[in-house]
Amino acid sequence: MIDIPARRGKAVHLRRGQTVKVVNTAGQQVVDTWAFAAGDMAEFMSMEHSRVAIGRIIPTVGDTFVTNRRRPILTLIEDNSGGIHDTLFAACDRWRYETLGCTEYHDNCADNLATALAALGLAAPHTPSPLNLFMNIPIVDGNRVEVRPPVSTPGSHVALRAEIDCVVAFSACPQDLLPVNGRAMQPTHAHFAISD
Amino acid sequence: MIDIPARRGKAVHLRRGQTVKVVNTAGQQVVDTWAFAAGDMAEFMSMEHSRVAIGRIIPTVGDTFVTNRRRPILTLIEDNSGGIHDTLFAACDRWRYETLGCTEYHDNCADNLATALAALGLAAPHTPSPLNLFMNIPIVDGNRVEVRPPVSTPGSHVALRAEIDCVVAFSACPQDLLPVNGRAMQPTHAHFAISD
Repeated sequence: MIDIPARRGKAVHLRRGQTVKVVNTAGQQVVDTWAFAAGDMAEFMSMEHSRVAIGRIIPTVGDTFVTNRRRPILTLIEDNSGGIHDTLFAACDRWRYETLGCTEYHDNCADNLATALAALGLAAPHTPSPLNLFMNIPIVDGNRVEVRPPVSTPGSHVALRAEIDCVVAFSACPQDLLPVNGRAMQPTHAHFAISD
Repeated sequence: MIDIPARRGKAVHLRRGQTVKVVNTAGQQVVDTWAFAAGDMAEFMSMEHSRVAIGRIIPTVGDTFVTNRRRPILTLIEDNSGGIHDTLFAACDRWRYETLGCTEYHDNCADNLATALAALGLAAPHTPSPLNLFMNIPIVDGNRVEVRPPVSTPGSHVALRAEIDCVVAFSACPQDLLPVNGRAMQPTHAHFAISD
């Protein structure tokens, strides 16, 4: 298993047909997830295009995420985490923590994406809206969004199959001012493993 | 009033404090709407950041949209259209119409944005997820998204106030294969007016 350190990111190459299993090691950790087409960082897994394709806000097993060019990129093939994920919220970034009152630098998922990609010699033209695995943002009364602790349990996981060669990036969300990562507001690490 | 021709786009500069009134002239026309910070096309009105900021999927009067740097950019200050707009769906693009079976070029909002910006000598680094004015995409059972005809009526409007100097772009959505623009599936023009 490959570690996604607490408050940090990690990116890897996936070949078409490979599967990445993302494990919520401690059970309450949100993992922001991105994917980019191999060789073209301008083509990325897009939540706004994927919601149209799957007809849902929260993906379920069998749903295929698509890129901003409507090409299949990742399919959710396993999920024993409770089935609650988010496609609505932007990755946290330096400005998010400023609006929450931080006056000093706070680790954030947007910078984690950039650092993780840089480790592979890559850069994204912008920060796409992520697939926030395990993040619990229910829609109340058909409109209001709420931030709630994850419903996932320690060791639960999802598995995503690559539909094209791609680069996948993860960030163990460092949010510790809201219960995004559980009521304890203690971000932890998570893990992933790749299989053919 | 400035015309947004049927199936086409139009972009204009707005100064901070100015208001743009967008009129649904025929009543059933969706108007995809984007905004970019003056002088920096990499800073754009972001639906994924705005949902976090306003705590809702569908904006209501008084809500302020923010950019991908969490800066206020447009505030919804009037709405007599029925209050139904969409922040979930990507702009239609050539690939969307291909997935719907089109084998020849179909007008689309993404290309309309590019053409409208080009008329001002501008280009966007990518197509941000738009504010789809008058578009009716209800969330059913807290998860499923449906495409329904607009609830707006002829001559109804919204007004958006610029919180910073910006470029605003509109596209009269050319979708004629689904009832996005009404059951008749006949895209029409729309209009806007700018006031100080």
